[in-house]
Amino acid sequence: MQPVFIFDSPQLGENIGAAARAMRNFGLDRMRLVSPRDGWPNPKAFSAASGAGIVLSNAGVYSDLESALGDFQRVYATTARKRELTKKVMSPRSAMMEIRELAAGGVSVGVLFGSERAGLENKAISYASAVISVPAVAEFSSLNLAQCALLIGYEWRLSEQVADPVTSLELTAANVIEKVILADKYTEELSKSGFFDAAQNEEAKKINLRNLFLRHDFTMSEVKTLHGIRQFLTRRRMH
Amino acid sequence: MQPVFIFDSPQLGENIGAAARAMRNFGLDRMRLVSPRDGWPNPKAFSAASGAGIVLSNAGVYSDLESALGDFQRVYATTARKRELTKKVMSPRSAMMEIRELAAGGVSVGVLFGSERAGLENKAISYASAVISVPAVAEFSSLNLAQCALLIGYEWRLSEQVADPVTSLELTAANVIEKVILADKYTEELSKSGFFDAAQNEEAKKINLRNLFLRHDFTMSEVKTLHGIRQFLTRRRMH
Repeated sequence: MQPVFIFDSPQLGENIGAAARAMRNFGLDRMRLVSPRDGWPNPKAFSAASGAGIVLSNAGVYSDLESALGDFQRVYATTARKRELTKKVMSPRSAMMEIRELAAGGVSVGVLFGSERAGLENKAISYASAVISVPAVAEFSSLNLAQCALLIGYEWRLSEQVADPVTSLELTAANVIEKVILADKYTEELSKSGFFDAAQNEEAKKINLRNLFLRHDFTMSEVKTLHGIRQFLTRRRMH
Repeated sequence: MQPVFIFDSPQLGENIGAAARAMRNFGLDRMRLVSPRDGWPNPKAFSAASGAGIVLSNAGVYSDLESALGDFQRVYATTARKRELTKKVMSPRSAMMEIRELAAGGVSVGVLFGSERAGLENKAISYASAVISVPAVAEFSSLNLAQCALLIGYEWRLSEQVADPVTSLELTAANVIEKVILADKYTEELSKSGFFDAAQNEEAKKINLRNLFLRHDFTMSEVKTLHGIRQFLTRRRMH
């Protein structure tokens, strides 16, 4: 079960298409359109969807909001503007976490988006049990329709994610001893080449060198490369 | 301090404008453009920005990526595709929390976005210390450029509560151009010493070398030491 995105009186086909693409980016494909201004199907929408045309082909088209919302058990209305409403105002994050739980429990959920020009009227918002407000800056809070759909879809996607993707780095990081060996090899070569001769404080300079190799999270292959660098830069001297 | 968004070879003015609007929605206004395909200024960008034209008017325009990135102490590269890179892969959320802390400490940070068609090439990514990967679904992971900028801006906005100022160590981090010079010097010396002779893929080996020097936050004194190491290890060859 996933939430259905309902677009009330959308104006530009480009925005409807971009919204479809954004939905697909995050695994959502159930869209409903309420009296799209420029009619339906809209070629501009399909070209803007670039690959997400399937979402548009399957979109339900309705002449009035009530029939488009009628079958949902829960409706959430998106709005950028703060309103005087006797409704819970939620962040996209908390709303999608709540919807994730509801949907998992088999509750049918719709998320309602207003038109580019006017957003949602209070009448439309009255169908919703809660309002989702995107935390844009007060002085520039109007989001593009597709951008708003993207944020909601993104939070839907994150609501199922347990953690950040594991970085390949953590798996291949060199351990301390490998970096100590590296530092010692360089120190040895640099002693031969007089690197420490001029230093008033040779010990401090050697500590700095160790820090240089030890404090960074070099991978094992980088350690290998650093050994190779040393060998190649010094090879002529050995002959 | 806020991160600067750098767009590498953007194609459509509409996307640049929509990205500017998305940035302003979340309080970001520092944009840089690297050789925009359709020239600059681009009227389509200004009309798409609807109210965020100021971001475009103040945008810096550069002919090459290196000059656009040169003065940052930290660069993050955005990509949808998972890659085989020895770089930390971060979610937008964790990346922006990290950037928030760095910026609060006075570290100059750039976030790099690739072109609509090709995204970022490995060469471009080599400037970054970490990769930001948007958790889109695997089978439809390509985000619209402005949509990607919006998500990053949104997470920047949400990261506001983060505090912890950075360590002085990070404040003395070398910038990209200083690390590029370092990588080039080593590459030059290593070519002379036959480091790349055996390699089936010399280019890939050079990219790896660049990554080795560019992805770590070496301090300026460490960069100095690394120059010294190169000079001392090769000095005998010069006589």
